[in-house]
Amino acid sequence: MFELVKKDKDTKARVGRIKTAHGEINTPNFAPVGTGGAVKTLSSSELTQAGVEFILSNTYHLYLKPKEKIITQAGGLYNFMNWQRPIITDSGGYQIFSLSALRKIKSDGVEFQSHLDGSRHFLTPESIVGFQQVLGSDIMMVLDECVHYPATRDYTEQSLKLTTDWAKRSKNFFKSHPSSLGPQSIFGIVQGGTYPDLRRQSAQQLIDIGFDGYAIGGLSVGEPRDIMHEMLNVTAPILPEDKARYLMGVGTPEDIFEAVENGIDIFDCVIPTRNGRNGTAFTNKGKLTIRNAEYAHDFKPVDSHCSCPCCKKYTRAYLRHLFNIEEMLGLRLLSLHNIYFYVTLMGNIRRAILNNEFLKYKKEVCSCYKV
Amino acid sequence: MFELVKKDKDTKARVGRIKTAHGEINTPNFAPVGTGGAVKTLSSSELTQAGVEFILSNTYHLYLKPKEKIITQAGGLYNFMNWQRPIITDSGGYQIFSLSALRKIKSDGVEFQSHLDGSRHFLTPESIVGFQQVLGSDIMMVLDECVHYPATRDYTEQSLKLTTDWAKRSKNFFKSHPSSLGPQSIFGIVQGGTYPDLRRQSAQQLIDIGFDGYAIGGLSVGEPRDIMHEMLNVTAPILPEDKARYLMGVGTPEDIFEAVENGIDIFDCVIPTRNGRNGTAFTNKGKLTIRNAEYAHDFKPVDSHCSCPCCKKYTRAYLRHLFNIEEMLGLRLLSLHNIYFYVTLMGNIRRAILNNEFLKYKKEVCSCYKV
Repeated sequence: MFELVKKDKDTKARVGRIKTAHGEINTPNFAPVGTGGAVKTLSSSELTQAGVEFILSNTYHLYLKPKEKIITQAGGLYNFMNWQRPIITDSGGYQIFSLSALRKIKSDGVEFQSHLDGSRHFLTPESIVGFQQVLGSDIMMVLDECVHYPATRDYTEQSLKLTTDWAKRSKNFFKSHPSSLGPQSIFGIVQGGTYPDLRRQSAQQLIDIGFDGYAIGGLSVGEPRDIMHEMLNVTAPILPEDKARYLMGVGTPEDIFEAVENGIDIFDCVIPTRNGRNGTAFTNKGKLTIRNAEYAHDFKPVDSHCSCPCCKKYTRAYLRHLFNIEEMLGLRLLSLHNIYFYVTLMGNIRRAILNNEFLKYKKEVCSCYKV
Repeated sequence: MFELVKKDKDTKARVGRIKTAHGEINTPNFAPVGTGGAVKTLSSSELTQAGVEFILSNTYHLYLKPKEKIITQAGGLYNFMNWQRPIITDSGGYQIFSLSALRKIKSDGVEFQSHLDGSRHFLTPESIVGFQQVLGSDIMMVLDECVHYPATRDYTEQSLKLTTDWAKRSKNFFKSHPSSLGPQSIFGIVQGGTYPDLRRQSAQQLIDIGFDGYAIGGLSVGEPRDIMHEMLNVTAPILPEDKARYLMGVGTPEDIFEAVENGIDIFDCVIPTRNGRNGTAFTNKGKLTIRNAEYAHDFKPVDSHCSCPCCKKYTRAYLRHLFNIEEMLGLRLLSLHNIYFYVTLMGNIRRAILNNEFLKYKKEVCSCYKV
């Protein structure tokens, strides 16, 4: 499934290729988040035109709305949302533990109340694999407990036992229940909080179970950045070289560079779209807050080096005006621009690695984005 | 400016062509409303692709935000919003009298407080022509008082005097102050409430002043539909045949048919976009409320006869889901669909008149849209 194309000469960064039933993902690469089956404000054809190679959708949200029956009738998430390229779905673990109320971990799964209507649900590692088979995502994730920061060693250790047990059960169910919507892959998720030995233990346990790829979860949850980088540094190198490595929920350009440098292949994050909706644009010269008074009379594009529809057609003054009158078109245009920025960034990172210029390119970009 | 192409054999309906500096408008035709320099949720290229030939923007809103200075620096509204086809701007009269607070009519103009921040402004017929010259719209409107329904004869008569006086002053200013952004036209607005003789008087006074085209204002403001049709019937026939006739703020498909039958050429209304944002789609079989439970499992397009991006790519079930999760993409897609519906409707009306089938086509459509 994963093909290693080139290793950087100076760092652990690497260029590769993930093959899926819905096409290839050139790595390192970044997935915009389509929580409920839509990348907020954007159409699937805009994403395709932007060069987005894959997206992440959230199992928890789709499980609650529109629910399994409608997705089944639609013939899976691809048909439902009219998206033709690869999809990763998470396991819902993160949302169950962060969004829902009254969650109770039981021996066989987790009970929780919907954050939407308070309805009660019970999900198991097996049922979550089953639901992701209904979604038909190319890459599915196992149910895990995402430990918050800070967490005691005791709690983290107990939680890791559960996560490993769930990973084993997920894999067994996945193996014994073939997907009806074509070939799918399943990734394990390394947890272990901020304890290096638990991170290593988690990685080893997942490798022993054997997955198609390995994600690193439980990072970027509020811990200081240097701890996040330490955990990456501890975990990534012991993951098998011939499998894709996925850092979940990350992130900013600077965190992406740090992770790529540690050998991470894929990312997902709401940052480009959420920032776009909040009026923050990523540019080659750093972040730009479109509401700032200085842009009222600025008739340059958001980023004069960018070839996105927003930068080709509209000025900062017009975009600022759209945000000032609370016009949705502004949210759309900056979301789209930020998606182009991330697509371009990841393409440049791949090219830089191929040209043995990764550290140089990292320095260039990170001088605009404070590390 | 207006060229009459064909008169219907059965009714007063007519096909024509309005020539402007930014291209031709084939009539009868409909302008989506871009209140603050954007047709809500939609980009200018989406409108162009949909076949929209012209839009209406609101002088009142643009006067308050982004204000004259920014529009001037942008080089007019076309540049500011990146729209290449004709624009009509209204005079702001309707909004001053319906949205703003504390309006006081003085001999030389109208004082009002902004509905946004309470700031005080004073506008005259002359300054409103001047601001529309800054906007650079192809067709500008004179300041008028839009009389609400119901209004006494006394009030309506007094108001009409003012409206006629303002029209005269607008025309004088327009004639003596050439536009710097190229050729513009100016339309008068017939008022007179629901009093047939005052309507006729207003029309005659405006014709005596002489305008490039004539609008009918003060209709669709809450009066019963048969009174609106009576006023149309009284007013439209006495307007010069060689000038364009514009029914402001209208409307529904059924009102458009009624007005076209009375010889109206152009329309503007928020209905297609506002309905789209509210989850109502226009289809060949009548209106469709996308949130209805019946569409939860309906995998047909909104309108199987429609070739818009929404109908070509997405199902009713998906759109209903988008509205259920309050995802802006849903608002966009139904707005765009409704714009396509109106563009198609107006094209079909023109074709029907050319083929001597206007009444047949009217009957066909209006059987789905109750008159």
